[in-house]
Amino acid sequence: MTPRPIITLTTDFGEDGYYLGAMRGVLLQHCRDATLVDITHHITPFSPLEASFVLEQSARNYPEDTVHLAVVDPGVGGVRKPIFLRSGGFWFVGPDNGIFTPFLEDADEVYRIRDDLAAESRSHTFEGRDLFAPVAARLARGEDPGELGEPTPQVARLHIPRPQRDGDSLVGRVLFHDHFGNLITNIRETDISALGGDLEVWVGTYRMRQLSRTYEDGGLGSPMALIGSSGHLEVAVAQGNAAAYLGVGKGERVRVMNAPQNVPA
Amino acid sequence: MTPRPIITLTTDFGEDGYYLGAMRGVLLQHCRDATLVDITHHITPFSPLEASFVLEQSARNYPEDTVHLAVVDPGVGGVRKPIFLRSGGFWFVGPDNGIFTPFLEDADEVYRIRDDLAAESRSHTFEGRDLFAPVAARLARGEDPGELGEPTPQVARLHIPRPQRDGDSLVGRVLFHDHFGNLITNIRETDISALGGDLEVWVGTYRMRQLSRTYEDGGLGSPMALIGSSGHLEVAVAQGNAAAYLGVGKGERVRVMNAPQNVPA
Amino acid sequence: MTPRPIITLTTDFGEDGYYLGAMRGVLLQHCRDATLVDITHHITPFSPLEASFVLEQSARNYPEDTVHLAVVDPGVGGVRKPIFLRSGGFWFVGPDNGIFTPFLEDADEVYRIRDDLAAESRSHTFEGRDLFAPVAARLARGEDPGELGEPTPQVARLHIPRPQRDGDSLVGRVLFHDHFGNLITNIRETDISALGGDLEVWVGTYRMRQLSRTYEDGGLGSPMALIGSSGHLEVAVAQGNAAAYLGVGKGERVRVMNAPQNVPA
Repeated sequence: MTPRPIITLTTDFGEDGYYLGAMRGVLLQHCRDATLVDITHHITPFSPLEASFVLEQSARNYPEDTVHLAVVDPGVGGVRKPIFLRSGGFWFVGPDNGIFTPFLEDADEVYRIRDDLAAESRSHTFEGRDLFAPVAARLARGEDPGELGEPTPQVARLHIPRPQRDGDSLVGRVLFHDHFGNLITNIRETDISALGGDLEVWVGTYRMRQLSRTYEDGGLGSPMALIGSSGHLEVAVAQGNAAAYLGVGKGERVRVMNAPQNVPA
Repeated sequence: MTPRPIITLTTDFGEDGYYLGAMRGVLLQHCRDATLVDITHHITPFSPLEASFVLEQSARNYPEDTVHLAVVDPGVGGVRKPIFLRSGGFWFVGPDNGIFTPFLEDADEVYRIRDDLAAESRSHTFEGRDLFAPVAARLARGEDPGELGEPTPQVARLHIPRPQRDGDSLVGRVLFHDHFGNLITNIRETDISALGGDLEVWVGTYRMRQLSRTYEDGGLGSPMALIGSSGHLEVAVAQGNAAAYLGVGKGERVRVMNAPQNVPA
Repeated sequence: MTPRPIITLTTDFGEDGYYLGAMRGVLLQHCRDATLVDITHHITPFSPLEASFVLEQSARNYPEDTVHLAVVDPGVGGVRKPIFLRSGGFWFVGPDNGIFTPFLEDADEVYRIRDDLAAESRSHTFEGRDLFAPVAARLARGEDPGELGEPTPQVARLHIPRPQRDGDSLVGRVLFHDHFGNLITNIRETDISALGGDLEVWVGTYRMRQLSRTYEDGGLGSPMALIGSSGHLEVAVAQGNAAAYLGVGKGERVRVMNAPQNVPA
């Protein structure tokens, strides 16, 4: 028995209205035995960058051959290409706006979706339902990718901002803050290890004198810095909300530097 | 192998608390191999009219024999009948409050659910769990509808407001606004084609001089009118929020009229 | 054919970001044919008490052998044990912080999860993904619990506050309020029956002169008290919002007492 196909969904649609209900229906109409799994539908509207981060942190946890359908598409119905690609044993289906940037380096092949695949009643404003869902479902069913698109050499990439060295310190940015108010930065564990030694972390004028290991290490009630589950530096308040505590959010600068030694605090 | 049964859920329950968890459990207890699919749980509380619009826009995308369970029920536990019906190859299960109005015209048969089918521990406030879910699951399993209810000749219909002619123009209303702030009206593409010629659209004192084809056509930053994916006229701001821009929402009047010709703008 | 395994999820993660997408991927990687079902992801952050109430109201509706994975974990990565237990024919997997208190009395056995089961790349801040999900999926697949943990005699229990007698009346608290603004208290139907006779219910200075049977009994627009679908006393406004009407929420005192007889209202 072949295993059931898995299709994940990542969108900025929210969960109200008819968009998700309609798209899920089309997926099941084309691939009735698929398991549909939500990654999230709460990407900040029109933010392929945030979607690419969320996909980077979740897509590789799925079984081989999972189809990742992602529709965060500021240019819906416009000139950007509809694409799908194979990378790391997964399929990715969505608009060519850089949303799949973290998977392009390992991509085996990128395809432009054939124009004539859209539903006859195709609208120009809901390609998630009318174009991407049928293609995702047909890939999930095991159809030949050559029937669904043709290889395309050109594909859009997002510029994903990296932390910068500034003298002895490293300056990054908050990528997004989660449901608990944890501030997740673009500074990776490997970026920090290049600094070496004892470190301190600054958000604005707020200073954290060390890296914690777990949310419990820092004690309750005040911000701490630690390497979070994404492998990125994050700032958190145990059983509290760091974004609210510090009054900051996406885009805020975060500085990591060597802690001064033998200096009274 | 018969395909797995599909049951969709449409409610105004929100996603917190125990309501969905309890109802999904009952569905799986009565039909363990069902695929459960959410249409939405964010219908405006107590609004069967909004639910009927969302179902109209999504239910027909599902495979044949899908069971659409919809619980938006201002009169729960009161005198309105619990019903199910067959229409267009689907089953619909829920309260008799007009929620299924878009599917009544094509309905083969409408059944009143048998009183003795409720869970023994039936509460008077959660028929989604205690009455509708067991019936939906048993229909999904292929049980004889005659075992679950008896045909009823009388069924409630909602008055779905239609746009009105007003001299040379057509006046409709905003039905609801989506997660992106797009204003979706009750004016259908077919209503507009009766007007003919070049058209302009007014929301209050804001005038849109033409119909756009995609969200990209109108340019960024200002409202545009177009036929959206529902086949209804909608007002949108590309990569923005029309509801916030115009400061309007559900119920707002929208006027479509012939554009004056050869008049300097 | 053995039925498909069912795994439910109860968390305080919200639905944005990558947490749910990553955890669902791990579940499917370890148990590809599982049906994943959401109970809720909107538990008040860091509230095992609320989670235990939601589980109590929903977990028993599922088919036998369902695995209930619950991650509401103020002490993630700290000293509390990761556990799983068998109770009432279900598996429960999560942190040992009392979240499973309603199921402990009937538990057959409680296991401490083996330390070496965590993903190699285990983070110290996301045990839902790195430890609990793999164990839940392996239990769902039917693995021997002895391979996954060892029996532990000690387990945390939450103190679940009970209503108190105060002279002739019973004083309880609002446990939580739902999406409709209904105020659900910790006073159970059985607590009230001990009072006997005609009853009235007070929230602050607002008096409800009787218990209603359904939301419709009380008429529209003013608060009513009734036994809700949880078997607990709740205060509701038909087609309205009791929490907003009364300006109260979680923790508010609710008093039930014998109604004075033959007294003009």
